[in-house]
Parts: sequence; C-alpha cells; structure tokens
Amino acid sequence: MHDSVQVPGFLGNGIAAGIKGGRGKDLSLIFSKVPARAVGVFTTNRFKAAPVILDMKRIKKGIAQAIIVNSGNANAATGKGGDEDASTMSRVTSRALGIEDELVLVASTGIIGEKLPIEKIARSIEPLVGGLSADGMPSVAEGIITTDRFPKVEYRKCFVGGKEVTICGIAKGAGMIEPNMATMLSFIMTDADIDYACLTSLFKESAGKSFNAITVDGCMSTNDTAIMLANGVAGNSLISETSGNLVEFREALSGVMVSLAKSIVKDGEGATKLIEIVVEGAKLAADAKAIAYAIANSNLVKTAFFGEDPNWGRIISAAGSTGVPFSTDSLELYIEDVPLFINGVGISGKQAAGIMKKDNIRVLVRLGMGKETFSVYTSDLSHEYIDINALYHS
Amino acid sequence: MHDSVQVPGFLGNGIAAGIKGGRGKDLSLIFSKVPARAVGVFTTNRFKAAPVILDMKRIKKGIAQAIIVNSGNANAATGKGGDEDASTMSRVTSRALGIEDELVLVASTGIIGEKLPIEKIARSIEPLVGGLSADGMPSVAEGIITTDRFPKVEYRKCFVGGKEVTICGIAKGAGMIEPNMATMLSFIMTDADIDYACLTSLFKESAGKSFNAITVDGCMSTNDTAIMLANGVAGNSLISETSGNLVEFREALSGVMVSLAKSIVKDGEGATKLIEIVVEGAKLAADAKAIAYAIANSNLVKTAFFGEDPNWGRIISAAGSTGVPFSTDSLELYIEDVPLFINGVGISGKQAAGIMKKDNIRVLVRLGMGKETFSVYTSDLSHEYIDINALYHS
Repeated sequence: MHDSVQVPGFLGNGIAAGIKGGRGKDLSLIFSKVPARAVGVFTTNRFKAAPVILDMKRIKKGIAQAIIVNSGNANAATGKGGDEDASTMSRVTSRALGIEDELVLVASTGIIGEKLPIEKIARSIEPLVGGLSADGMPSVAEGIITTDRFPKVEYRKCFVGGKEVTICGIAKGAGMIEPNMATMLSFIMTDADIDYACLTSLFKESAGKSFNAITVDGCMSTNDTAIMLANGVAGNSLISETSGNLVEFREALSGVMVSLAKSIVKDGEGATKLIEIVVEGAKLAADAKAIAYAIANSNLVKTAFFGEDPNWGRIISAAGSTGVPFSTDSLELYIEDVPLFINGVGISGKQAAGIMKKDNIRVLVRLGMGKETFSVYTSDLSHEYIDINALYHS
Repeated sequence: MHDSVQVPGFLGNGIAAGIKGGRGKDLSLIFSKVPARAVGVFTTNRFKAAPVILDMKRIKKGIAQAIIVNSGNANAATGKGGDEDASTMSRVTSRALGIEDELVLVASTGIIGEKLPIEKIARSIEPLVGGLSADGMPSVAEGIITTDRFPKVEYRKCFVGGKEVTICGIAKGAGMIEPNMATMLSFIMTDADIDYACLTSLFKESAGKSFNAITVDGCMSTNDTAIMLANGVAGNSLISETSGNLVEFREALSGVMVSLAKSIVKDGEGATKLIEIVVEGAKLAADAKAIAYAIANSNLVKTAFFGEDPNWGRIISAAGSTGVPFSTDSLELYIEDVPLFINGVGISGKQAAGIMKKDNIRVLVRLGMGKETFSVYTSDLSHEYIDINALYHS
C-alpha cells in the first residue's frame, strides 16, 4: 500500500510536533528532489491566513520545491507576527533542506487567531527532514488533518506518450467546506513533465469540478489552499495544450481531485451521507450553480437527509429561494430515479423512503429553462456536526 | 390578560380542526366587524404557496375583513388542486361570515406538498365562526403555530390626536426564518384610522427592521406572509404621511413587530440564545446587510454560540467570506463590550467566556469603511434543531 503512493522524485514525512497538544501528527513536509512547476488556488476570503498570503506571492513564479504544512493552528488573523511566523516556518524548512527559501510554500490549518507555536515547528524541522521518504505520503496526509476522521490520499497512474506518470493527491477537509474551497488543504504531486500554461488550465479545470463543487456547511475558510507540483522526472514528452498527449493525464488528474473532493464531503464533520445535487436545464451556468448550492447548503434539506426523510418540499423550496427565475410548473425533481415533483405537483415521498437509507444519494433537479448544468456534493447535517463545532475551540 | 389584547372591532378564534392530527389548535380566524385597510408582504420564493398567490392578488385592492389561517399543512407545491383548496377555504369562510369573498385572506403553514384536508376545514368553519370573540387573539395565535414552543402575541396602545389606539400582532415562526421572512406568518391588527399610503410605508418600514432582519437557518419558505389590517374604529384623526400624528403610532407599530420578530428568533427551532449581529461602518447598506447575514447564518458561528465559545475567528472569517471589500486591519469585533479583534490581531476570548453564557448576546462588527449599518437577530444551532428537522416530516 505505501509503495503504491510513491511519486518519483517526491519525498514526504509527517510527524507530531506538539502543535495539537500531543493529539497525533501535526507537521508535514512534501519535498521534490528537483524544483517543480507549481500552481495553486487559494481562499477568496478577505481574511487570508499568513501562509496563504505568502504562497500567493511566491507561486506567481510558477516554481516550488517544498511544502511545509502544520495542522492545529491556522496562523490566521494573527497580524504582522503571523506573517513573520509563516516566513520563519519557510526559512527553517529551506535551511534544513538546503534549498532557496523562495521555493518553499507554507500551509496551516486549525484554530484561527492564536499565535503559531513557531518554536515547536522550528525544533521539529530536523527530525521532519531526516525522516523524509518516498513512502512518506500517507504520513504527510496524517499530519495535515484536523477534525477529519481519516487521512485522504488518492493516486492514479497513466501513460503519456508511452511513459508512465503518477499523480498523487492528499487532502484534509472536514468542516468549512464550500465553494472556493473553505477549510481544505490539498496537495497534488506528479512526476509528469507539463508546461506551465497547461498545468494551470488543467488544475483550474479540475478544481472547478472537485474542490469548488463541494460543500459541507457553506462556510469559507481563511486558509484554503490547493497546490499542485509537477517535477517532470518521468521524462515524458512535454504535455502542453497542443501536444495531443494530455487526454489521459487530464482524466487521471480529474479522477484524483474528484475522488479527494468526494472523500472530503464523506468525511464532512458529522456527515453520514454523500449527496450529489445535480441541476440540469438552467439558462445560465451561474443559475444552475446558485440553485445547486442553495439546496446543498440548506440546513432543512441537510437535516431531512440525516433523518432519511424524502422531504422534497424543502428541496424545491430551497431551489425557489435563490432569485433565479424558472417556471415552477416545469421544474422536475428526482431522488435517484424516483420522481418527486413533476408538473407543479408533488408526488408522495413514500417510494423514495428506501432510497433515503442509502449512503450515497443523487438528487436531480431539472429546470427546463436551458442547457446549463452544475453538480455539487454535499453532506447531511447531524448531531455530530454540532458536537464537533460547539466544542472545537476550548 | 385576555382582556388586554382586545383590539376594538376585531374578533378572533382558534380551534382544533384535526389538520395536525389532533395535536392542538390548527385553524384560526381573524375578523374585523368592518372592512379594514389591508397591506401585506409575502415570500419572494419562486414556489409560492397557493394561499400566498391568492392573497397577493386580493390585497392589491387594499381592503380586507377576515383572515383564515391553518397550521399543519402549507398548501404549497400542490398544483391546481391547491389553488382550488385555497379558494374553497376562503369561500366557506366568507359564507359563514356573510361577507364578500374578496375580503377574505388565506394563510397556511406546515408540511409542503401534501393536499390540504379541505373537508376538515370546511366542516370546522361553523364552530370557528361561532366562537369568535374579542378576547380570541391568544387562541388565534395558538392555532397558527407549528413547531413553535409558544404562541406569540404582542400589543401596544398609543395616542393619536388624543384618541387611544391599539396595535396587536400575532406571529408564528420557528424554522426557515430568513430575510424576506421565511416560514413565518404574522398578522397585525389595529383600530387606528390610517390612510393606505401611510399604512403601506409604515408597515414596510417596520417589516424591514423586524421580520426582514431575522434569521434562524437561512431558509426561505414558500408561505411567508405578514398582513396588517387597520379598521379605523378608534375614530382618531386620520393618520397620513403629512398629518403630523404618526410618530407615536410608528413607534408602537415598530415595537410590536420588532418584539414579535425577536420572539420568533428566541423560539427558533432549538434556539438557546438570541444573538444580535450589528454591522457598523459599511460603505453601502447592502454591504452591512451581506456581512451581518453571513455571520448570522454561519453554522460555525451558530454552533460556537451553542457551545458558549467566543470563537471570534469564525465570526471574522464569515465576515470575510462575502466578497464585500474591507480592510482586515481596520475591522473591529466586539462581543458585548469585550474587544476580540482589533488592528488585525485577535485578542484572547477568555474575557468573553462569561458573556457567552448569557441568553441575549450582542455582536458588533465595525468595518471602518463608511457610515452604513445593519442589524440582524439570529439564534444558535443546537441538537434540538437537528432533532426537530430530521424528524418533522414522517
């Protein structure tokens, strides 16, 4: 199992640095033996954590070699001291690795507004670097989680012009998962050789279908970060927009990212179900998205799923609440294949009662207004969500 | 107590018609002995319940004499049959009262998408009308509630040009409470003589500060209805925009509606606290409103309040998530009088820990960008919300 998540040229390690107060691994490092092409997407929150601000500046150059990540503390809303801590976190890492400081990216996740225990991180860098290993990705994944119930690692292999390349992604999620990513971190590594423009467009495209198409509680974090590194050591013929060898790679990348995104929702705080909300037949793509998210974020819809109750009235009511114009007579609602609302009239939910017991449920809303579609993954809202979030801080 | 909520010229009654399956009163009637000036505000959901569609048409004439209301069934998403049921509900009422059918308004609240048990309503009209009484407002308030823990009645008396006038409001709320009103019904009665233009503007103004400034779960209902009837029997000098006698009346009306709105939030499904979110110093009023609602609807913020945890990071993160531009360094956050975030840096929440145990808590966000303000009332998010909403349907 560990073998299978090796990505040529990449090393990883995750250790317990005491940031979480002894509750497991909390400091992870990803290192590419050679500088890699780098792209990232970040939270759009006005309050961006210090490491996000640092990374957004550095990643513009399109190159990076290491990512240092801590969990247990977000280093967000920590003022100038927080910026200095993020820089220190980078500096101690670059020194220990013997690389240029500008090639280090930093990520943090955890409690907002508390000073990062930078000494704990500084004193853990040597053992962290010392333990770097090609088999280390699972421990990296462990070191970045907060309230996640399980670490998330996905990988795919594919062929690019006859050469095998690997894509491995790790992620943490749990709460605050929303459009534009909310508290999630994800790091995607590949040994493929791919030009910067193509890497950028493929990564954004896949992020749109994965991390930007999920929601747990509609909250957007200060720390959301997804970074992809491509180190080119596979020696494949360069993938570019025009090279004709990107189909398989695009599919594999999208497979990794969509799987990670789904497992983030499945592991959403307190989630007992993975629910896909598909909106078809919208006039505008933005309309489809607005309605899909309105349904996916409705506490009334989410508690109905937790209660395994096909309360379709809440679904159509959420769809109607967005201000997007549509004809209520032509809207159709299905849960899996069971029609629940057709021609302006509801149909008894009794047929759907069995379906509601499933772990994975697909909700389909057809607006009948056009051809645009959007699909979002969400979770139900349970008692455990309340427990986790009422008690997380103190 | 009953005496004190009499409004001259108005009668009321609420009885159990069996719509809720024997769980208490579920059919209410408000009757004015003379036709009254009437104004209303209604849900903006695309899916409007049949009674809402009926009322929106009728209330354009600005006059009404009776409001027939059932709880236990929303008569929403019920197609043409639902429209017919709403009309029938009006017709049996107007016949029993011996008034023009066009003077009857109809409201329903409860489960969406199930056929209204119109026979139960029809056969209950005679006893309902027979029991009409000047002391009946508390029973009207009982008959309109669903998951509410208590009926909501508020009244004020004031003087208009030397004549005493009374304003009495009743409401039901509980879940789905959001801007533009969500599942709430409210009926305001006054014996004041007030011209239509002035009634319209005062009612809209008060609705903006009350029913449109609260949220429980961010969900908007198909049935939201607030109607005000003014029957003029007090014989005061006509209140108009220019009459100079509206100050006291405006204040009393606003007092009734804001009190009802607060008690709806206090009684929000599972609510243990009433939280006021005040946003000051916005550039645009819309900015203040967007940020206030983002905080008020954040599940992470709401669970933190349930946990009595001054997790201010979640509050500023919600403020930052709206896309409204502001300087994160100039934003200030206070809970009651305790500063928690100033000059871009968080302050330990320990001082605020005691405050978080209060039942009524005020959160103040100062943006430092301008002079616009918005204030919204919200509740916390508790286990009881989940129980109520996971189990409501079946």
